[in-house]
Amino acid sequence: MPASPLRPTTLDLSGERIDASYVIAGDAEHADAVLEQLVVEQTIEFPRDLVPDDDISREIIGRVEATDRRGGELHARISYAAEIAGGQLPQLLNVLFGNISMVPGVRLVDVELPPSLLGRFAGPGIGVAGLRERFAPDGGPVLATALKPMGTPIADLARIAEDLALGGMHLIKDDHSFATQPFAAFRERVPAMVAAIDRANEQRGEPRSIYLPALNLPADELHAGVEFALEAGAGGVLLLPGLFGFDTMRSLAASTPDDVVVMAHPSLLGSHVTDPRSGIAHELVFGTFARLAGADVSIFPNHGGRFSFSPEQCRSIADACRAPLGDLAPALPAPGGGMTVDRVAEMVRFYGPDVCLLIGGALYRGDVRTQVERMLAAIEEVAT
Amino acid sequence: MPASPLRPTTLDLSGERIDASYVIAGDAEHADAVLEQLVVEQTIEFPRDLVPDDDISREIIGRVEATDRRGGELHARISYAAEIAGGQLPQLLNVLFGNISMVPGVRLVDVELPPSLLGRFAGPGIGVAGLRERFAPDGGPVLATALKPMGTPIADLARIAEDLALGGMHLIKDDHSFATQPFAAFRERVPAMVAAIDRANEQRGEPRSIYLPALNLPADELHAGVEFALEAGAGGVLLLPGLFGFDTMRSLAASTPDDVVVMAHPSLLGSHVTDPRSGIAHELVFGTFARLAGADVSIFPNHGGRFSFSPEQCRSIADACRAPLGDLAPALPAPGGGMTVDRVAEMVRFYGPDVCLLIGGALYRGDVRTQVERMLAAIEEVAT
Repeated sequence: MPASPLRPTTLDLSGERIDASYVIAGDAEHADAVLEQLVVEQTIEFPRDLVPDDDISREIIGRVEATDRRGGELHARISYAAEIAGGQLPQLLNVLFGNISMVPGVRLVDVELPPSLLGRFAGPGIGVAGLRERFAPDGGPVLATALKPMGTPIADLARIAEDLALGGMHLIKDDHSFATQPFAAFRERVPAMVAAIDRANEQRGEPRSIYLPALNLPADELHAGVEFALEAGAGGVLLLPGLFGFDTMRSLAASTPDDVVVMAHPSLLGSHVTDPRSGIAHELVFGTFARLAGADVSIFPNHGGRFSFSPEQCRSIADACRAPLGDLAPALPAPGGGMTVDRVAEMVRFYGPDVCLLIGGALYRGDVRTQVERMLAAIEEVAT
Repeated sequence: MPASPLRPTTLDLSGERIDASYVIAGDAEHADAVLEQLVVEQTIEFPRDLVPDDDISREIIGRVEATDRRGGELHARISYAAEIAGGQLPQLLNVLFGNISMVPGVRLVDVELPPSLLGRFAGPGIGVAGLRERFAPDGGPVLATALKPMGTPIADLARIAEDLALGGMHLIKDDHSFATQPFAAFRERVPAMVAAIDRANEQRGEPRSIYLPALNLPADELHAGVEFALEAGAGGVLLLPGLFGFDTMRSLAASTPDDVVVMAHPSLLGSHVTDPRSGIAHELVFGTFARLAGADVSIFPNHGGRFSFSPEQCRSIADACRAPLGDLAPALPAPGGGMTVDRVAEMVRFYGPDVCLLIGGALYRGDVRTQVERMLAAIEEVAT
């Protein structure tokens, strides 16, 4: 072994491992070299030949558990000592994909977390069962929409919010671009929307619509923003993990009572998924990671809308939102992005009833209250 | 115009615009359609035909300022009303690339911010001039390294840190994977490293080495972590915008005095840049955005190392770190990732003297103190 300042290290590890699967593009020689880089890059980031034969080399460097070459790609399952994640989400994401994100042709496709690590995450608070009980006790999807467009005065948005709630809309969120603009001041907007939706709720009765303001504020104002929103009477929050990181979302979600609906928006997360050879699988980003961060509802662009996700990718997201994940509650997948009333039946067939249908601009084609009623009628027709 | 619940809106806007340039892949028909989608998607995210002829349609929807079809791609310059960003970084990133990140074949390649928006950002605190005055007053690069590898006991890391400082290393940062693991407890590690480097500084004199702990903590512990580190005597901090968002970084950097060195680590940012057809240009991610977030030093993988960035991409990052950007100080580009002592001369020729050379594992090949001295000698040789 070459000269090194390192002395052999003994570590007291549990033996629990994080399993992570990657697909590595390129010919066999290249892919094998990238795999060798990966197990070191994601852990010790240090010349392997300078590490003594100790617990660092045996337990900390990622371990190749299985490899399989097929379709011109190398499929590799790696395991990491559970302790590497330090019991927290940022370092978990860092070990799974941090540095290797800078190597094209490596895609993180699956993750299995040990119980001790999963146990660190509260996950969705109200989850699918709670959302269903509150908004759709007789079966069928939960319905969501967004207040739009940016630039609309608060008084006009309030009028629209009231009409949406009068029509029976379940979840009324801000457009995710409502931030701190002069025309969208958070601390004026939130009470105005709550008041408008409350008026409609009193008139209409159960299920009561809830308002989810966008937490698109400077990072150091997010916690105060959530507190302000809940005190004002918002029933949920729209969080943006692509802008603030999944762990900021987790921390904000954890600061809310369980019955507050936490909705995750996909803005800026596209970079992780659009290149099929690189990045992170759709179901991890919009499913597993969103749930670890506390999403009750995870928005993603539906196939056939304005974006490019395939039916298979959408199904994988929906599956990951609802699949067993330790003791974490399932989340509702919320396909959106250019959806219309006419697609309700098809979407319910595709996703099943445990879905949140997110319809935005299309509801504004005519009277919004009537459009919501049409939407709910279409849902009822499918459910029966 | 179809029926719509929207009334014409009048907005009191300054006329200042954010300029953003995109390259859109695909044939002319496809690229034109994506461009039309982009200007709406990034702003009102709403059917254009439902917006009255008002200030929202005229000023809020992105405006196509110029287009040029070349090399099979559409190059388009768009402008957005400055007010859309709400004077803050998350919404600026959201309008520049939020939703369109989910459309493959769109790359954000340039951004020009108006003075009113640039004026909202403090930028680098110590910047290039301050770093040079403190660490390399006679010219030549600033030198940085990382304490490694993960798993090494704190006492051993302290010994290595002391040797690095005795050799004259300027910036001694944690490996970015040092988080909250049992073997890397932040509140034990930070004082131990500060004490070790202080011992060496007392023995060695100017320029004094500084320690930059990694702020790889749960999101809600970051601010307390920075405070703890500074109180313990750390001279800088290593922040991770890929894990926590650029605005969390800005907020943390803003909480430190100007003479505290803020270093940005690229973990998880690779997803934005590796696909040449999609994502965001290297110089924006590691240059402009890092500076807006307060980076004095911006780490990125050097060409010819373990990663894939090309010489042109590296040069563009270095240029963006040092180019005029409102009143913001320039930052030092810090190429790293598998660098060796033998590459010093070439790197200084390539980047010029305003660079931070980041050398990690290679310094551990032998006695670290001797290796640092070799590194500094190589730097001096190039500088003279």
